[in-house]
Amino acid sequence: MSEPYELTATEAIQLIRKKELSIFEWVSSCLKRIKKKENQVKAWIYLDEENALKKSKELDDNNKPDLLGIPFGIKDIIDASNLPTGFGTPFYKNNIPLRDAASVAMAKQSGCVLIGKTVSTELGHRAPGLTTNPHNKEYTPGGSSSGSAAAVSAMMVPVCFGTQTTGSVIRPAAYCGVIGYKPTYGDFDKSGILPNSPSIDTLGLISRSIEDLSLFRSILLEERYVKPEKINLKKLRIGFVRTPHWDKTDKSTQSKLEKFIETLRLDKFNITDLNIDPLITKADQLHIDISGYEFKRSISYERFNHFNQLSDILRNGRLNDGYQVTNASYKEATKKVNILKNDIDSVFDNFDLLVTPSAPGEALKGLEYTGSALFNTTWSLSGNPCVTLPLFRGKQNLPIGCQLVTKFGNDDQLLNYAKSMFELS
Amino acid sequence: MSEPYELTATEAIQLIRKKELSIFEWVSSCLKRIKKKENQVKAWIYLDEENALKKSKELDDNNKPDLLGIPFGIKDIIDASNLPTGFGTPFYKNNIPLRDAASVAMAKQSGCVLIGKTVSTELGHRAPGLTTNPHNKEYTPGGSSSGSAAAVSAMMVPVCFGTQTTGSVIRPAAYCGVIGYKPTYGDFDKSGILPNSPSIDTLGLISRSIEDLSLFRSILLEERYVKPEKINLKKLRIGFVRTPHWDKTDKSTQSKLEKFIETLRLDKFNITDLNIDPLITKADQLHIDISGYEFKRSISYERFNHFNQLSDILRNGRLNDGYQVTNASYKEATKKVNILKNDIDSVFDNFDLLVTPSAPGEALKGLEYTGSALFNTTWSLSGNPCVTLPLFRGKQNLPIGCQLVTKFGNDDQLLNYAKSMFELS
Repeated sequence: MSEPYELTATEAIQLIRKKELSIFEWVSSCLKRIKKKENQVKAWIYLDEENALKKSKELDDNNKPDLLGIPFGIKDIIDASNLPTGFGTPFYKNNIPLRDAASVAMAKQSGCVLIGKTVSTELGHRAPGLTTNPHNKEYTPGGSSSGSAAAVSAMMVPVCFGTQTTGSVIRPAAYCGVIGYKPTYGDFDKSGILPNSPSIDTLGLISRSIEDLSLFRSILLEERYVKPEKINLKKLRIGFVRTPHWDKTDKSTQSKLEKFIETLRLDKFNITDLNIDPLITKADQLHIDISGYEFKRSISYERFNHFNQLSDILRNGRLNDGYQVTNASYKEATKKVNILKNDIDSVFDNFDLLVTPSAPGEALKGLEYTGSALFNTTWSLSGNPCVTLPLFRGKQNLPIGCQLVTKFGNDDQLLNYAKSMFELS
Repeated sequence: MSEPYELTATEAIQLIRKKELSIFEWVSSCLKRIKKKENQVKAWIYLDEENALKKSKELDDNNKPDLLGIPFGIKDIIDASNLPTGFGTPFYKNNIPLRDAASVAMAKQSGCVLIGKTVSTELGHRAPGLTTNPHNKEYTPGGSSSGSAAAVSAMMVPVCFGTQTTGSVIRPAAYCGVIGYKPTYGDFDKSGILPNSPSIDTLGLISRSIEDLSLFRSILLEERYVKPEKINLKKLRIGFVRTPHWDKTDKSTQSKLEKFIETLRLDKFNITDLNIDPLITKADQLHIDISGYEFKRSISYERFNHFNQLSDILRNGRLNDGYQVTNASYKEATKKVNILKNDIDSVFDNFDLLVTPSAPGEALKGLEYTGSALFNTTWSLSGNPCVTLPLFRGKQNLPIGCQLVTKFGNDDQLLNYAKSMFELS
């Protein structure tokens, strides 16, 4: 048998139900794995080992099969009761909320075992923490959900929570070679999560299996788990979207994706080269104004009270974007976003699934820059659900993701499509 | 000269600039007023007297006229750094956030002096605190921004922050005979405010003057203060909206409003009896599903960990509503809300201003029930800006509000209309 830490959540749960694995063994195995890898990966800002072990023993003793025992981590802009929430900054070390974020409370209620808080970039923006890419420690794991992607990639836990305002779930998941899922805007509750740009911010999941995503989706919606189905992808109308950023994309990403699409076409998949460049260009522009304005406001306390402790990246980045936007122009931009959302919705009158890069290439060398969100901005702003699948490897032998996007609200189908696509490869 | 506590913020600021009043005198006068009245009104859950006095002295010493020195209070679901946020419950007494809500940070940055936290109903829902109506202590002040409305009404502070998900700013302001303002959804930032139903929740203001509302609006948008203008209301296309709830409205409210409208008509105001009952009925129904579903999720930590400490009102009220709604039906409801918003927007193609009751009557006797939000639900759900003006008195000699509603995003005009209407009376 493989080590428990290697298992996906749905695999481990089956073994637990067959009494071939205990929750304590599973959690202990993950904690051992963390000990082994953390020195290099630096995925965690806070580990709650003692409580995790205690909780897992209790769950075994209670022997209630509905309580799932899944070890999981959460990005450090998400509150957990009685653990520090640092927001990826040095100045919130003593911030210890009394309540769990709603999503964390739901996971705990399902018997999931919180292992700790994963490294976030500063206030969920761009300035990185210390996390490295588990595939090569010289490379960025991506951000802002850096620790969450790295922890899942390094098999420290099967599932982590991240959040996305631009590309903060999809990009790090792609860079770390795992599966990332940003659900439809509004699907998962955000109470107890630090707002960045509230009209865009989305709680997402990072895992190594589509089943695990479906399982956690059911936990966070408090609905019955429905195993994702393998469907016949040849019946789908698929759009291959290179976007206006194709030229800025690494050659190996281009060729891997082109070849993949070509293979599918030869296999009689119904794939159209789809140009929606005007929509994407419009989204890129609007995202700057909307996220800038909202971010500047959300972090008002920090800019007034900790300005000198904020990074230049933040001050010259989204915060500065925000200072350029008046309330009147924000409102104008908001109206345009509503029109854009309708236009994007219309794209899905003719397509079931869009395939597009997850990022412009493999992870970048160095830890200073978490990478570009060029391929994520549109879907973050529009709120459409996306999944990144680790389908390829680039010339540096690092993972390359393939992003799948569906219609707003079509998450269950998206997970079916993703499962079917993942099992093709 | 009247006592400083009686002044509106804009009046006091003028005196301070003319050196006829110091910020310390103003704040001290408010604190004395609180001491005198609090025993009966019970508007405050936490007073920060010492820091307020210290801060006001510092402001006087600094002598920077841009720092306004306005004493203000905030509803106890809004965070202020290093003060307890109890969320209107007994079990968050030790909850002391380290960061201000963004709105509080902005007000402090403008030199406003936080006096303390005002009583909220339980988690911003319906179960009341101890606050009484300053006009008659046997009567409810309304809720959920109970303490904020009562504190302004009792002249303890010129301005308080409240929040509205159903009728929680407009109704208590109307019951307490002061001015309430719920801005366009999304206009004021909500970081650091307990979510109730995030797609509806709106930070609002309670004051005794329209100028004060405009001033605080400028503070919370970080834009230049523009004094509201008196305009010629006769040029407006006004709709008088009785709503499908007119029959459930107290006779004195009916007759006061009818007479008011009749007087305006005789004075050649352009007023149409406007029936938008189908829109209001649809909004009432959708609000139950949306607010129920979102509230149930927002307070996940509390329902899993403090269920037995929650009131029956909450458990059998919005929480129970939430349990009836699946994710699929929530999404259906969300789509219908988007259509409804467009339909409501179209109403304003033909009308500049709607006039409608703020509540179905005067405040109710007893403190158990904070009153009905029948006249507020539609505008909370649609996100349109509203103001309640204390224009009338009922047969119990308690205040009756008149609600003004304008097009989404038309807040500056709304404040002009409200000023002009208030000065008519």
